[in-house]
Amino acid sequence: MFESAELGHKIDKDIYDKEVTALRAALLDAQLDMANLAQFPLIILIGGVDGAGRGETVNLLNEWMDPRYLQTHGMGKPSDEELDRPMMWRFWRELPPKGRTGIFLGSWYTWPIIKRVQGEIKTAELDQGLERARRMETMLVDEGALILKFWMHLSRDKQRKRLKLLENDPKTRWRVTKRDWQHYKKYDKFHVVGESVIRHTSTAEAPWTIVEGFDSYYRSLTVGKVMLEAIRKRLDEAATRREEISAPPPLPSIDKLNILKSLDLDQKISKKAYQDELEKYQGTLALLTRSPSFKKITVIAMFEGNDAAGKGGAIRRITGALDARYYNVIPIAAPTEEERAQPYLWRFWRHIPRRGRFTIFDRSWYGRVLVERVEKLCSEANWMRAYGEINDFESQLVRHSIVLVKFWLTISREEQLKRFKEREAVAFKHFKITAEDWRNREKWDEYEAAVCDMMDRTSTAIAPWTLVEANDKYFASIKILKTLCEQIENMLHKKV
Amino acid sequence: MFESAELGHKIDKDIYDKEVTALRAALLDAQLDMANLAQFPLIILIGGVDGAGRGETVNLLNEWMDPRYLQTHGMGKPSDEELDRPMMWRFWRELPPKGRTGIFLGSWYTWPIIKRVQGEIKTAELDQGLERARRMETMLVDEGALILKFWMHLSRDKQRKRLKLLENDPKTRWRVTKRDWQHYKKYDKFHVVGESVIRHTSTAEAPWTIVEGFDSYYRSLTVGKVMLEAIRKRLDEAATRREEISAPPPLPSIDKLNILKSLDLDQKISKKAYQDELEKYQGTLALLTRSPSFKKITVIAMFEGNDAAGKGGAIRRITGALDARYYNVIPIAAPTEEERAQPYLWRFWRHIPRRGRFTIFDRSWYGRVLVERVEKLCSEANWMRAYGEINDFESQLVRHSIVLVKFWLTISREEQLKRFKEREAVAFKHFKITAEDWRNREKWDEYEAAVCDMMDRTSTAIAPWTLVEANDKYFASIKILKTLCEQIENMLHKKV
Repeated sequence: MFESAELGHKIDKDIYDKEVTALRAALLDAQLDMANLAQFPLIILIGGVDGAGRGETVNLLNEWMDPRYLQTHGMGKPSDEELDRPMMWRFWRELPPKGRTGIFLGSWYTWPIIKRVQGEIKTAELDQGLERARRMETMLVDEGALILKFWMHLSRDKQRKRLKLLENDPKTRWRVTKRDWQHYKKYDKFHVVGESVIRHTSTAEAPWTIVEGFDSYYRSLTVGKVMLEAIRKRLDEAATRREEISAPPPLPSIDKLNILKSLDLDQKISKKAYQDELEKYQGTLALLTRSPSFKKITVIAMFEGNDAAGKGGAIRRITGALDARYYNVIPIAAPTEEERAQPYLWRFWRHIPRRGRFTIFDRSWYGRVLVERVEKLCSEANWMRAYGEINDFESQLVRHSIVLVKFWLTISREEQLKRFKEREAVAFKHFKITAEDWRNREKWDEYEAAVCDMMDRTSTAIAPWTLVEANDKYFASIKILKTLCEQIENMLHKKV
Repeated sequence: MFESAELGHKIDKDIYDKEVTALRAALLDAQLDMANLAQFPLIILIGGVDGAGRGETVNLLNEWMDPRYLQTHGMGKPSDEELDRPMMWRFWRELPPKGRTGIFLGSWYTWPIIKRVQGEIKTAELDQGLERARRMETMLVDEGALILKFWMHLSRDKQRKRLKLLENDPKTRWRVTKRDWQHYKKYDKFHVVGESVIRHTSTAEAPWTIVEGFDSYYRSLTVGKVMLEAIRKRLDEAATRREEISAPPPLPSIDKLNILKSLDLDQKISKKAYQDELEKYQGTLALLTRSPSFKKITVIAMFEGNDAAGKGGAIRRITGALDARYYNVIPIAAPTEEERAQPYLWRFWRHIPRRGRFTIFDRSWYGRVLVERVEKLCSEANWMRAYGEINDFESQLVRHSIVLVKFWLTISREEQLKRFKEREAVAFKHFKITAEDWRNREKWDEYEAAVCDMMDRTSTAIAPWTLVEANDKYFASIKILKTLCEQIENMLHKKV
């Protein structure tokens, strides 16, 4: 795999000088077209061997391009705020918006590779990590991002030579660290792991470009030319982006059976029982969230459901038991301008809380496969791929000891009508009912189909949906509180 | 000052029960009007004595109000990312946008008070801290925020009694910590410091409300009613906000002398001298920013200047010497939707870098007193107060060991014309010249007056402007690099 990058590529200074002027002008031009179009971001990952010129290449790109539309992220040691969230959070927060370029020196590959080389993880775990990276990249590409991945390579001999060269020059000595030499000693191991990383993650949409790193002229021109061509190609295509899907459509509804219809929506409990249970579970929840071990976990509770199903009330039953300093309710409305310039899931990632915190989403990332699907606010291709993206997102949360509890509140069509009318009648509930609610109601069957598909595709072993029969608000509230307590208890027991 | 809050205020349960229902409905209503209007944020600060029910009050408010439009911030120990920035950054990042409420449990008063009580700072320093807080609040109010400050008070006896009560009840025992008793022992000291804080920072626009904290019914009703009245009043006023100013207008220009006209814009250096100096200062800059002690400081370089004065080129001369992982160029364009929902300076605070980083602003917070003033994009009241706000902002940066270097690049009217025509002629510079540039040029004198006022009012001892004669690009670049190196060196010597 690295054969071509060990041939000793070299460019003469004359040729370099001649070519570089035109290349710089063209790159700058392409970058400005990108910025003006503001249709896609460019994400550049730089990986490879120590001493192969990763940092120098990045600095060169920054010199060539317009620094106003370019940001470089040296993803070194994570901060404590970053460690408190799933690993990918620190990349999400730095993703460039449409029209801009983000260069990541040290990417989502760095730590898996280093850990594997140090023997801290096994091949199977490395493969899992790579698979996650691959899926992340697929999602980014589907969201419109242009991803370029460069792997700077050196043969073993050349690496030693480069490190020595750098070390002997007083001007570059500071660049060579003890860690570089330690890595050098593990060259063979790095080589094998690197090869496997490139093999597993060179996809059609985001292939690795392996660049021989010894000669800086060759290296720089190669990187610059690959970039230029990729940006230009993408700019030309931008007008004619495909949005087809190859996936089969969701399960057709042939008989009248479905998961929602199978629910007994009229389950109820008495007011007395409700008050007793409420006190009990709110008490349990208060104790659980105040226990010292709660500081090590995170809770995300997410509410979806029919209009007027009682999400707001259910949320208040929960927050009533919590300490206000440690929870946060995120109502999901239309995305802001900054959110629209980012991949779909960005606006949820930004609200992922630190450890010891409790976040409640009032509506969620499922909007894409519910309202956006039914109201045709996004293409079929986009909502079809959302199922997989959401599963990936949620599995990252769960793997990070986040208790993720997903509630779907169901009411019957008749109950909804009753509540709508009630809201219209009562003055202070007036604001809760709009013309849009009535319009949504007309699409009841379409929403039901979308919900059933969503359940089939996103109720996973690690992040199952909890269906809540909500015709009776008492019953619903208790079921929600009880489920929440149980799931938090489970996680705390796992951790302790 | 605390006399009224030691009278033993008490409300019967019957009265409380009767009043609280109406109060809750009214508060919810007011909150929703606020959210719909989205014209001002509500900022609530909760301070006071341990055991006086600060946390309980906050939890109660969260129960009463709609949690979707309310966020509570327990400002405990700062994170490492927060410690790396000026103290106020952690408040800026949590400011509620227009239409929302943010409750701060622990505010910009907490640490100054605790430090003073512990004897870690002297009264003079406390006063400085309070003065800064006062100015922050004035700014917020001028930006439209409604600020409510509650001080929960207990007499010495009552505090002991409350702590004992809480401690003896198994359900509330966890609330009383060792720290609470330590603070109790310093009650008298707290009392004196608290009194002085309230006296100094009870301004007309954001007065403290002192609430006796012993009886929870009295406390809750009082806070709720104050809030309700304040929100309602503000909603009524919202349509008729005043924007007058009392400050005298800037210095009139009577003769033809001004600071810009006094510059010798035609200073130049030869290409040879330029190349030598460039190498020298870029080298110095590279060494300075790579030295280990650079990790303890932060650099913010800010560029303003006439159109076509060469800001972009000057910035590239700087970044050419830096490691791309540690710098960031922020081009200031029109504010985004999220930025418009916040005070003016918010969109600059969000880009304040961590220690060891270098941030370059291409245009800046001075837009308000330049383009916004001249183009009448904001009222005279707004740009007049901006001078003071900007000075406060910058003094916070400088106090946090941030090297703040402000450059104004001046070219002559003739030089600008030459460059505009050149840009129109050269194809790849075309994008740099727009109809707007020509329009701005017609307002040359108005801009000049605005710049002179800006210099007079914001070139301070701690954050002086550097005027750069920029008719000759070589001369300008070298002056900029040299100034930057000197100022970084100064700071490093101060620190080492």
